[in-house]
Amino acid sequence: MTSKKLVNSVAGCADDALAGLVACNPNLQLLQGHRVALRSDLDSLKGRVALLSGGGSGHEPAHAGFIGKGMLTGVIAGAVFTSPAVGSILAAIRAVAQAGTVGTLLIVKNYTGDRLNFGLAREQARAEGIPVEMVVIGDDSAFTVLKKAGRRGLCGTVLIHKVAGALAEAGVGLEEIAKQVNVVAKAMGTLGVSLSSCSVPGSKPTFELSADEVELGLGIHGEAGVRRIKMATADEIVKLMLDHMTNTTNASHVPVQPGSSVVMMVNNLGGLSFLELGIIADATVRSLEGRGVKIARALVGTFMSALEMPGISLTLLLVDEPLLKLIDAETTAAAWPNVAAVSITGRKRSRVAPAEPQEAPDSTAAGGSASKRMALVLERVCSTLLGLEEHLNALDRAAGDGDCGTTHSRAARAIQEWLKEGPPPASPAQLLSKLSVLLLEKMGGSSGAPLKAKTSLPAWSAAMDAGLEAMQKYGKAAPGDRTMLDSLWAAGQELQAWKSPGADLLQVLTKAVKSAEAAAEATKNMEAGAGRASYISSARLEQPDPGAVAAAAILRAILEVLQS
Amino acid sequence: MTSKKLVNSVAGCADDALAGLVACNPNLQLLQGHRVALRSDLDSLKGRVALLSGGGSGHEPAHAGFIGKGMLTGVIAGAVFTSPAVGSILAAIRAVAQAGTVGTLLIVKNYTGDRLNFGLAREQARAEGIPVEMVVIGDDSAFTVLKKAGRRGLCGTVLIHKVAGALAEAGVGLEEIAKQVNVVAKAMGTLGVSLSSCSVPGSKPTFELSADEVELGLGIHGEAGVRRIKMATADEIVKLMLDHMTNTTNASHVPVQPGSSVVMMVNNLGGLSFLELGIIADATVRSLEGRGVKIARALVGTFMSALEMPGISLTLLLVDEPLLKLIDAETTAAAWPNVAAVSITGRKRSRVAPAEPQEAPDSTAAGGSASKRMALVLERVCSTLLGLEEHLNALDRAAGDGDCGTTHSRAARAIQEWLKEGPPPASPAQLLSKLSVLLLEKMGGSSGAPLKAKTSLPAWSAAMDAGLEAMQKYGKAAPGDRTMLDSLWAAGQELQAWKSPGADLLQVLTKAVKSAEAAAEATKNMEAGAGRASYISSARLEQPDPGAVAAAAILRAILEVLQS
Repeated sequence: MTSKKLVNSVAGCADDALAGLVACNPNLQLLQGHRVALRSDLDSLKGRVALLSGGGSGHEPAHAGFIGKGMLTGVIAGAVFTSPAVGSILAAIRAVAQAGTVGTLLIVKNYTGDRLNFGLAREQARAEGIPVEMVVIGDDSAFTVLKKAGRRGLCGTVLIHKVAGALAEAGVGLEEIAKQVNVVAKAMGTLGVSLSSCSVPGSKPTFELSADEVELGLGIHGEAGVRRIKMATADEIVKLMLDHMTNTTNASHVPVQPGSSVVMMVNNLGGLSFLELGIIADATVRSLEGRGVKIARALVGTFMSALEMPGISLTLLLVDEPLLKLIDAETTAAAWPNVAAVSITGRKRSRVAPAEPQEAPDSTAAGGSASKRMALVLERVCSTLLGLEEHLNALDRAAGDGDCGTTHSRAARAIQEWLKEGPPPASPAQLLSKLSVLLLEKMGGSSGAPLKAKTSLPAWSAAMDAGLEAMQKYGKAAPGDRTMLDSLWAAGQELQAWKSPGADLLQVLTKAVKSAEAAAEATKNMEAGAGRASYISSARLEQPDPGAVAAAAILRAILEVLQS
Repeated sequence: MTSKKLVNSVAGCADDALAGLVACNPNLQLLQGHRVALRSDLDSLKGRVALLSGGGSGHEPAHAGFIGKGMLTGVIAGAVFTSPAVGSILAAIRAVAQAGTVGTLLIVKNYTGDRLNFGLAREQARAEGIPVEMVVIGDDSAFTVLKKAGRRGLCGTVLIHKVAGALAEAGVGLEEIAKQVNVVAKAMGTLGVSLSSCSVPGSKPTFELSADEVELGLGIHGEAGVRRIKMATADEIVKLMLDHMTNTTNASHVPVQPGSSVVMMVNNLGGLSFLELGIIADATVRSLEGRGVKIARALVGTFMSALEMPGISLTLLLVDEPLLKLIDAETTAAAWPNVAAVSITGRKRSRVAPAEPQEAPDSTAAGGSASKRMALVLERVCSTLLGLEEHLNALDRAAGDGDCGTTHSRAARAIQEWLKEGPPPASPAQLLSKLSVLLLEKMGGSSGAPLKAKTSLPAWSAAMDAGLEAMQKYGKAAPGDRTMLDSLWAAGQELQAWKSPGADLLQVLTKAVKSAEAAAEATKNMEAGAGRASYISSARLEQPDPGAVAAAAILRAILEVLQS
């Protein structure tokens, strides 16, 4: 874990981050002299209830990202992971009161410091005659036995911002909002899991995890969780989390049962890839629906982070139709996602692909001697590529994204699987057609393109020419650009000989393979002119291009089988 | 850097992540048998132009997050950092054609594999009679001298999705959209910077950086950048990036000049904290406005990531009013943020805080002997807390977020600064009032609360009682809960003696300090009942509570000065 940070100073982090959010969001303004952000259109809120929230910094986009029509009126931010100052909370309360709001609801996450500081500001504001109520949100489902401090306030608090915001926008009164919000907060649970810790700017990470462990039930301040578990698949981890969150013997469980309707949130704790976030979302939907739970809405994104912590939290909120209307109500808050007002469970998630244009039926007998020879060639090509996997990846790491071997191995394994289904067609045209469909689906990458081929040697040469031409047109590659085209082009030049009457299959192919291998080796000295490697300065490249090496190795494997 | 990943299998990552995005977004559907996501309401697009984009996975929320009314019609995803399969691109083109769209624009990031595979699918679709155009987007501003491969496609591609989407929604024709998009793409530049690398699931990180280096000008596939620079402040790094991007001798520069109007994007490459993202956004706004550039809109968030790479990219797009209308046009795409149609530059970013209720003027002479003694006490308290900083942080790391010492040191330094401004008031009431205002602003955290005090010993004891009561009401803490209340409570019990006539200042205070220190030590054996430490099981706690230790140390410092 890096402890490097893109900051100006440790002391200025919270101020600079809030200034950035406000500068980039015309709906927000800072309150001078305080770490407070407020709606720019405060004066349009006359007669309505104001909603203030906040807490330590380091949870962005919470809380300032949730300011807007239909959500919060303003937030008070503390230093990183530190409760905001009483004086600033008080200043925010005074500012919204001065703008003509009829009362303020403080939405506070359940932490001692936040309760204390928001509470003291509330006492002071009430002494000044401003109506102020306070709700303390605890949605943590980690603790099976409740301690006196109660449940911690986690990502579910954002749903409370939304519900309270919709009520305030609808003109509901202060006490009624507080009452409704307290009911909603009880129907909610959140659980976190992380692959690693995070570090407060200027400090060390607050816990360490070994490579095969994940931390379960953690908070949002880098503090350790309640349990360490062995690394497992996304499905297993999500199942364990949902089991824990809904277990009725857990004092902080969410009472979700088969038939329940929920809003689910998958929240990035900060540093997890969005690829993994999608995988966790998929696992959560499948696991919940497998339990008979109806998912009314799903929110996936970064809502309440713990700096760069590489983990997620899951939140479940039990909903009925009136509550769902509040979740769906319009808001201008920048960090609230576009959520369609359509149930997640019960809709059709896929559509049938249009049929492909019909091909002629396979007229060549499979399983004959030619077919067996094709199978032998393919098996040799596959074993060659599998043997080269780490070598090709290593070559690619020096110049690209390090997956050249992985990509070719994926193709090899797909071909091996396909060969198990039965003998391949003996007709080269049919064979190539099948292979191209297979590789386009399984290989991905940029080396699989459909070719048409007939059975004669001139046709094989012409097919090679067509492939080389397509690679040059769309690939913008030419021989000498340090790509797989270099070895294929060299081979293609030799294969021209097949177009002459009476050309010898093996003699010509032998020359083509040698030429391809020489060309692959020669890429060592080339500067990349196309492909990703072209963005690396040639000074860093001291090895041949992995694509060129792979192409030459495939041709060599074909030759060896045909020779034997 | 962790190489742990929350996945089910390396091979299934791209499929699972896309399935998750589609499952959670009712506006999307998968195309069966392909890694393709399409708008669920395809049939409402009859007579319009379809927009397809895509590329390797690992860039989430790109590209599927940008599907929706007003943006993309669909996307084709490859494996992680791998171009999508030709067959799937073709299937997507056929599907949108079958739904009655009048043509398809392929929006392709400039990478060889993507160009090749989208290009081959386009050739095939055109052979089937479907009108298909293709735009290749290269917005990278890293390379000062252009190579044959051209500029790489980076985060700016998302702005092209938006512009093309608004045009298609407005009913503009295929060739006109392609033409306009090509013009817009030329007025755009993107540059990336990162603190570290990322790793493809199942592979090692593709480059390593030392602790004092950052990588500049990198792409979005974990490949190394064009230059390594020494770690610097956010302001310095942003200045360097903007200098590079707008330098007219850079062949890939954006022609931004004083007076230019731009849309700016601050894009999280994946694993950077949103706190840092806000700091970078702040630095970028200040630097651009300092150059006389007018920022029309600012987009800050995760748009096109490189897995968990802890870095950012900046994108600048030159805009005029018609182009801005397209950026502002409505969309339902889940990952497009709520952006107010208001200029960033030129608006008022702060408002004046309401005046505080007036306090009585300071009636006690400052600078006298009592005042000097107060100053000595405060100086000793400050030096004591500064000396304890690392010890308190270490105690806090075991049970909390490790910042207890940092928070107290911040307070100490604030008091030291304040003392430099002049002698403190001699009146205890005035002194405490000033200190509470100072600490509420500077200390943050949850240990500063306003107290009222008079000058007599009984009044000091009563003030202590009032403070302890507030801490219990809002802090939900009681003696025995392993908090700073333990030592303060113990001291408070002894200070009751001050309420008796003739009580001795030093004698009572000495007993109170000893009692506080014993109570602090005794927290070693307590299970936390309040505060953040209460969420850690007591088995892990073997040291005293840092807040209790700090409170006892402050009392000891006061005593020592009064004794001398």
